[in-house]
Amino acid sequence: MIELLRADALTRLADRDPNATPGFDGDKAAGQEALAAGVDHLSALQERLFAASTAGERRRVLLVLQGMDSAGKGGIVRHVVGSVDPQGVHLATFKRPTAHELSHHFLWRIERELPPVGRIGVFDRSHYEDVLIGRVRQLAPADEIEQRYADIVEFERRLVRTGISVVKVMLHVSHDEQQARLAERLNRPDKHWKYNPGDVDERMLWPDYQRAYETAIQRTSIDEAPWYIVPANRKWFARLAVQSLLTDALERIDPQWPAATYDVEAEKARLAQS
Amino acid sequence: MIELLRADALTRLADRDPNATPGFDGDKAAGQEALAAGVDHLSALQERLFAASTAGERRRVLLVLQGMDSAGKGGIVRHVVGSVDPQGVHLATFKRPTAHELSHHFLWRIERELPPVGRIGVFDRSHYEDVLIGRVRQLAPADEIEQRYADIVEFERRLVRTGISVVKVMLHVSHDEQQARLAERLNRPDKHWKYNPGDVDERMLWPDYQRAYETAIQRTSIDEAPWYIVPANRKWFARLAVQSLLTDALERIDPQWPAATYDVEAEKARLAQS
Repeated sequence: MIELLRADALTRLADRDPNATPGFDGDKAAGQEALAAGVDHLSALQERLFAASTAGERRRVLLVLQGMDSAGKGGIVRHVVGSVDPQGVHLATFKRPTAHELSHHFLWRIERELPPVGRIGVFDRSHYEDVLIGRVRQLAPADEIEQRYADIVEFERRLVRTGISVVKVMLHVSHDEQQARLAERLNRPDKHWKYNPGDVDERMLWPDYQRAYETAIQRTSIDEAPWYIVPANRKWFARLAVQSLLTDALERIDPQWPAATYDVEAEKARLAQS
Repeated sequence: MIELLRADALTRLADRDPNATPGFDGDKAAGQEALAAGVDHLSALQERLFAASTAGERRRVLLVLQGMDSAGKGGIVRHVVGSVDPQGVHLATFKRPTAHELSHHFLWRIERELPPVGRIGVFDRSHYEDVLIGRVRQLAPADEIEQRYADIVEFERRLVRTGISVVKVMLHVSHDEQQARLAERLNRPDKHWKYNPGDVDERMLWPDYQRAYETAIQRTSIDEAPWYIVPANRKWFARLAVQSLLTDALERIDPQWPAATYDVEAEKARLAQS
């Protein structure tokens, strides 16, 4: 499944069907079953990563989640990330930058939220906003936006070099699906708080955003940290795909239970007497 | 159940049986079933709290978890806190203070980890360590330790006044049960990393720690923020009890879905045209 989701410098969004379920030929029920079946393995890998970090393992994973409003970022956090021990997760949500954040380089606030050793880091939105809404809304001069792609590549290369596996996911929904999801928020009083009139303002710039995503994906899909375009019209598939990506990243690290740093038999004797 | 767990200025630990299941007369299977049955309600309350906070609700909950090594704090985080959306939780683990933290008042690092609005805050260990290990190991002069109880009461009264429900839980395990749990860590290679020879050093001071807990509980169980002594020899009961405490605290807040701050019909029309 994973290889089918991968993007590179030539990827075009128009070639990726938001309704597809690449590499998985089951239906929704089968997908949900597969998701549930993967929980324990992912959770165990995370615990082993945490354990290994107490003995010097410095590798870790950073999941970067991007997507248009209602693409399902929150659902991924809740249903995929939420299945592992909260102690093993470092979650950061990036909203509109504060004045203080804007007074720094755009990567400043990102750097501060990198996961500590032993943790899975999760970014709900990220530094990519600075080349997405930043580009579409012209929040910075054009040459500065251009510079940011290079800054991001250099930054992520450093992360990978220092042991952070960067897993970048674009949740790819269709224009129609977004309309249906926003409409649901308007139709249900218990969802009204999730709706923001600004969501439709951004929606009206849909083609610009798609171009900005495509450009970001093309420019920053490096071998060490490629993008994965996850079709997200079917929530169950998107969740299963992200679970697979996280599992794969942790399996590549293959963290090991650390050996005791003390004399086990001596401690058994000491404990027995206590 | 909750009232039976509550402590006050006269509570004695010796009167609380770590094996008991106060207010619950089912067995382990029934307890686990009750825990599973409570997940959706707790999770829904948390989501409503988060939603309400976007419309000005400032009340929130802070769960303070204390207990001897192996008392089950990590299991509570994993199995109770882990059942709600990670976006709705602010988890802080307090370890031995750094030199930088020690250069400040002991509440300084605590203040920095208070939960933002809309979140359930969870402290895995807390400011109470400063009157527990602080007292037992004489990490500060006696008069300073004395002052800390008053500082804590004043601090927590302020939290409550500003809308933070402080739920303080001591996970109460017996001396024998701790020995069994530490022995399990020594008997299983995949648990070796969880064992620390220092755990037995602290265990040898068991009576001192019990006295320090009792004193802390008596001095800081104020009406606004009482302690709850949760018998923790049966992990399933401790988890069920903490779930009940969290649920109760959120029910008292009774957060409401906020009304739309925009014209719903106008937005429906605008969305339909987009």
